[in-house]
Amino acid sequence: MKCRVCREPAVIDVRRHNANFCRDHFLRLCRDQVTKAIDEFEMLQPGERVLVAVSGGKDSLALWDLLLDLGYDADGLYIGLGIGDYSDDSGEYARAFARSRDANLIEIDLRTEYGYDIPTGARAARRKPCSACGMSKRHVFDAAAIDGGYDAVATGHNLDDEAAVLLGNVLHWHEEYLGRQLPVLPEHNGFPRKVKPLVRLAEREMAAYCVLRGIDYQVDECPMAEGNRHLAYKDALNTIEVRSPGAKHDFYFGFLARAVERFRDDSIDLAEALAPCTRCGAPTPTEVCAFCRLVERATTAQPVTLSPGPATARGGAR
Amino acid sequence: MKCRVCREPAVIDVRRHNANFCRDHFLRLCRDQVTKAIDEFEMLQPGERVLVAVSGGKDSLALWDLLLDLGYDADGLYIGLGIGDYSDDSGEYARAFARSRDANLIEIDLRTEYGYDIPTGARAARRKPCSACGMSKRHVFDAAAIDGGYDAVATGHNLDDEAAVLLGNVLHWHEEYLGRQLPVLPEHNGFPRKVKPLVRLAEREMAAYCVLRGIDYQVDECPMAEGNRHLAYKDALNTIEVRSPGAKHDFYFGFLARAVERFRDDSIDLAEALAPCTRCGAPTPTEVCAFCRLVERATTAQPVTLSPGPATARGGAR
Repeated sequence: MKCRVCREPAVIDVRRHNANFCRDHFLRLCRDQVTKAIDEFEMLQPGERVLVAVSGGKDSLALWDLLLDLGYDADGLYIGLGIGDYSDDSGEYARAFARSRDANLIEIDLRTEYGYDIPTGARAARRKPCSACGMSKRHVFDAAAIDGGYDAVATGHNLDDEAAVLLGNVLHWHEEYLGRQLPVLPEHNGFPRKVKPLVRLAEREMAAYCVLRGIDYQVDECPMAEGNRHLAYKDALNTIEVRSPGAKHDFYFGFLARAVERFRDDSIDLAEALAPCTRCGAPTPTEVCAFCRLVERATTAQPVTLSPGPATARGGAR
Repeated sequence: MKCRVCREPAVIDVRRHNANFCRDHFLRLCRDQVTKAIDEFEMLQPGERVLVAVSGGKDSLALWDLLLDLGYDADGLYIGLGIGDYSDDSGEYARAFARSRDANLIEIDLRTEYGYDIPTGARAARRKPCSACGMSKRHVFDAAAIDGGYDAVATGHNLDDEAAVLLGNVLHWHEEYLGRQLPVLPEHNGFPRKVKPLVRLAEREMAAYCVLRGIDYQVDECPMAEGNRHLAYKDALNTIEVRSPGAKHDFYFGFLARAVERFRDDSIDLAEALAPCTRCGAPTPTEVCAFCRLVERATTAQPVTLSPGPATARGGAR
């Protein structure tokens, strides 16, 4: 197995590109793919200030590393979700990376700042944990980016993530989600610009990137995500990708090229109906935004203690 | 396990409907779902003459059985594809069913009528067998329906088939195919009306229908279809359906309700560009239609003999 570029021994095969790469040329491939995504979708301009959503996992740490190497003024934001040891460990990985790169990591702890954690919040709001968590993170990242004067929020969604989300949106024909499933969402209605520079790179490649760069990351899946639908969609796409390398890429980029515009109307209508939340000022279609309603419910609820049993892993039910 | 309707012992569970059924109420469910599909999509009017595409498999025989029971003037058309023992056996099942119902089965043998069979035709045209076969069948059915003065061609595509085709079309974002993936295609440009009355019923239900009605059918998969993409898409959807019963139904009917119209323009454009084939008169976007080109290549080629090896099963390559 030889590197496609230099013919030296390869360390990874990328079947989608029908090629193998040595360490250095694989790392260059990753940088080139990020540059290509940023340019193609006009995600960022040179010198812009970027807030990277850092979870401590492979994708967000690789993204932060890549943006720093590409010369962007990139700070990290780590949110303490309060999901037991998983969150404690994840925070450590984020901090260790920031120290190693002498980069600025902002930390916001949900319990300290807002008086709740994800297990308690999900249970109190009767939401699935991944739903309560995603909503909380989006709100905190948006607010931090606006308050901090950042030009954009960058998230570590990779090709596998985007393809799996797209499959879920297509299986349910969520018209409004389909209309805004783009690798870049411009600043609008009080929301900061959102960019996904890893959309041209697969999950496996981000793991390899971290290993080859010596970046330690949280390897475990979140214990609360176990058995969620997103993982089932990833499995389904993986079985198709094995048969047809490049299938995920074609699915996602074919959508962007030939389908997303057909669903834009629905999303634009939705965005126009937003007004500031009467409590926190965030843009929302309701009087009080979903985040403030979650906070209200969660802060009046009994805290949930995570234990290793399978019942607790599904949102603290006993 | 009790029947939802009569509380007698059930013989089948239908998870999508979250219900179990005894023999008689399951058969009624099948008839009701076919009636509902025919009415909802205005597929057929009482008394119309229908040509049923009969393969000898469970879906086409169940469809023919159901249409006869519902009072339609339904003849069958069986095409001899020349795929070795598989075709010989399939023809026998079709003939036995026709005799048992005293129904009219038209037979057209590709080798006798057109001078080729599917293994030879696929190889000569350098097409995948399923592609050459599908194209041949569509052409022969269309011509037979027009020549015989039938009001519509009915095919046994079930919910699993339509969902798998839809998944394939979505994974590749085949805009023009998406725009015409409908349960009924009206007569247009020289094409007969095409209807799919089984779209509300799953593959497993059609197998159960045949067993409960005592209809013998070809159980084997076509040996040339082994490993084709359509079956991989079915597998992927099956893993999702197990987790979320009703997922296939929601995927397909959600598409019809909220997405297909967004792709209609492409298909309408395509249909308008058709003209009669200069050889056979069938509507085609090219001077000579794809079927006539296949026939030309296939009839000048050396016939392929099917043997049980895996190489031959992929199109006669040796």
